[in-house]
Amino acid sequence: MDSRRAESFSDGVFAVAITVLVFNLLPIADKTASDLTAKALGHYWPAYLAYVVSFLTIGIMWLNHHTMLSRVRKVNRQVLVRNLFLLMGVVAIPFPTALVADHLHENSQGTVAAVTYGLVMMVISVGYATTWVYLAAHQQELDAVRRVRVPRLTTLRFTAGNVGYVAGTLIAFVSPIAAVTIFGLLAVYYLFEQLPDTGSEGHQEES
Amino acid sequence: MDSRRAESFSDGVFAVAITVLVFNLLPIADKTASDLTAKALGHYWPAYLAYVVSFLTIGIMWLNHHTMLSRVRKVNRQVLVRNLFLLMGVVAIPFPTALVADHLHENSQGTVAAVTYGLVMMVISVGYATTWVYLAAHQQELDAVRRVRVPRLTTLRFTAGNVGYVAGTLIAFVSPIAAVTIFGLLAVYYLFEQLPDTGSEGHQEES
Amino acid sequence: MDSRRAESFSDGVFAVAITVLVFNLLPIADKTASDLTAKALGHYWPAYLAYVVSFLTIGIMWLNHHTMLSRVRKVNRQVLVRNLFLLMGVVAIPFPTALVADHLHENSQGTVAAVTYGLVMMVISVGYATTWVYLAAHQQELDAVRRVRVPRLTTLRFTAGNVGYVAGTLIAFVSPIAAVTIFGLLAVYYLFEQLPDTGSEGHQEES
Amino acid sequence: MDSRRAESFSDGVFAVAITVLVFNLLPIADKTASDLTAKALGHYWPAYLAYVVSFLTIGIMWLNHHTMLSRVRKVNRQVLVRNLFLLMGVVAIPFPTALVADHLHENSQGTVAAVTYGLVMMVISVGYATTWVYLAAHQQELDAVRRVRVPRLTTLRFTAGNVGYVAGTLIAFVSPIAAVTIFGLLAVYYLFEQLPDTGSEGHQEES
Repeated sequence: MDSRRAESFSDGVFAVAITVLVFNLLPIADKTASDLTAKALGHYWPAYLAYVVSFLTIGIMWLNHHTMLSRVRKVNRQVLVRNLFLLMGVVAIPFPTALVADHLHENSQGTVAAVTYGLVMMVISVGYATTWVYLAAHQQELDAVRRVRVPRLTTLRFTAGNVGYVAGTLIAFVSPIAAVTIFGLLAVYYLFEQLPDTGSEGHQEES
Repeated sequence: MDSRRAESFSDGVFAVAITVLVFNLLPIADKTASDLTAKALGHYWPAYLAYVVSFLTIGIMWLNHHTMLSRVRKVNRQVLVRNLFLLMGVVAIPFPTALVADHLHENSQGTVAAVTYGLVMMVISVGYATTWVYLAAHQQELDAVRRVRVPRLTTLRFTAGNVGYVAGTLIAFVSPIAAVTIFGLLAVYYLFEQLPDTGSEGHQEES
Repeated sequence: MDSRRAESFSDGVFAVAITVLVFNLLPIADKTASDLTAKALGHYWPAYLAYVVSFLTIGIMWLNHHTMLSRVRKVNRQVLVRNLFLLMGVVAIPFPTALVADHLHENSQGTVAAVTYGLVMMVISVGYATTWVYLAAHQQELDAVRRVRVPRLTTLRFTAGNVGYVAGTLIAFVSPIAAVTIFGLLAVYYLFEQLPDTGSEGHQEES
Repeated sequence: MDSRRAESFSDGVFAVAITVLVFNLLPIADKTASDLTAKALGHYWPAYLAYVVSFLTIGIMWLNHHTMLSRVRKVNRQVLVRNLFLLMGVVAIPFPTALVADHLHENSQGTVAAVTYGLVMMVISVGYATTWVYLAAHQQELDAVRRVRVPRLTTLRFTAGNVGYVAGTLIAFVSPIAAVTIFGLLAVYYLFEQLPDTGSEGHQEES
């Protein structure tokens, strides 16, 4: 299958998943039905924080996904299956987002929410790593545009990302708010940092 | 009409339908509002199971759909009408998924949920078969890329799929959990198995 | 603007709007939470009927929309504005669908629901007619693929469609179920009937 | 990255966000569950008004977005990040829309709703301005189709748009209904007015 078609389906899924995040804000209109004041709206700051963090996170994931799939011209059944599992994680993100939005207030329940969030992120990270490794190992078969590799620096940075999610998840046991802040900072870091792929562009002749 | 346009609309519908599945997870945040613990989250395992099974199932259906429509360059009104009925079944999948998510706990109500799930799957299978048979019968008119046929082995495997859904639906009367497990295994089987179309690629010269 | 881009945005809107219809089925899982039986599911037949009727209706509208926009290569601000109003009607369809799903049971309330449904359809019909007439009047400016006109027979059939919706809406005052059945039959009729555009293809040289 | 790909993802997001607006109408079916009359439906006029205003507003934003991105052939990381923040605002629109739909009835609570609406609009306006200024400053790097600039007249009109939102937000403290009407009129004004980009087309040789 042409990789563009898999990309275009994935793009649709990413676009819907990122928009579904607003469904964590909509119930606030009902919850403030009897008394809408600026203060009442402010009370729901965990929902706004969770919206921003998850929006940036899915946005980054979309960019990573595009970078990854644009490296090959064809995809086979193996890639499509890995991609499907990846999307299954991405589509689920609004769920831990809802948990964080509803429970970040209270410390002990916020911990359960933030840990669930971190675990979903780790599962998705593993999904990306698996797909990326597969592409690197089968580039000829997949008609790679240029040599796909996982450069050492990138590996480190990728790992750093995972380490960030692991650290955030552990910190959630002490302070769920700190954990969600870390998840947000990770997204912002990747927004402004170069992606692995782009980063390696200058060195593509090196082995 | 160019078949790519029908595909692109169908792709959009598949992408939205697969993402709608997360709406069966979102209410869990509200239901655990007063007491969010790991155990309370675990209590909703039927929702997670139903999410995974339906996600893989719609994913597979998307692949099948693409395989089917990519065989022809044009589609006529007849194909579009069949396609619309097919999509009507696919878009409905989140509904039996919600029934399973809410009722797999209790045996007798789980039976109604799992049977409904199986029936929707059977209706969709019939939709696929009808469209496939139509394409095979009108390939010249539809400017087929290569000869579309329903190879014997494939027919068997296709039938096997239906047999699997029929079997799962019957088993649901005894154990709805076993039935949903079977629906999941069917999706996994098709994930890793070759699709009819790809499977016949090597033999496209044979009659 | 290239008409393909307007089409692709509209396609996305149609694909989401048609999928939103399943949100009228999802609450049934909750409503049957305490007692899910086949009979309890059957009780919600107006929801299933409304789903089928609206799904076919939006499907037909997508086809009509494609037929219309594929006639021109460019679109200007005037067309885009008309298109936006058209889409505003299409996106609203799940709302009267929900009214019908919830109220078709009771005669007097079903009347309000079915009349609302019919009114929305009439507004959309007017939207289509307005856009079509504009395209016919500005085909040179819009770089028409071939001469766009509203053939007499088609006009009649188009009018017939509107007459159907008017008739259905009036009948809703007596029997809302009959009205919704008529709306469904109108969709089925257009599914199998040729569209105006296709119908006039053979006569495109005639004035 | 090719700018068309960023556009196509953004288009998907716009298409979903505009369709999500119907979720502010769907609960009306439940709220009128016990007594559906024409009068009961009429009672929810703020929801219909909010739907129309937000639909036109997102529609206009989609047009502006396309105009903006079609000016360049490539986008870099900086543009994508700005675009992501822009989309974060657009996707959030259904939330202040829901506030307006639920609270426009009561004067003091309607003020909070309309002010929130105005603030979200202003944030999005800033997002557009930031992206537009970036494109104008890096057109060579982004392989601009033709010189991108912010002509004086356009600047004025752009500013006028912001002034409109600021004025509307201030007026919301006196009359939230007047404020929402202004937001609607702003959308209608931009619908029929030329966009900055199109407006400057004739003068593109001037400095």
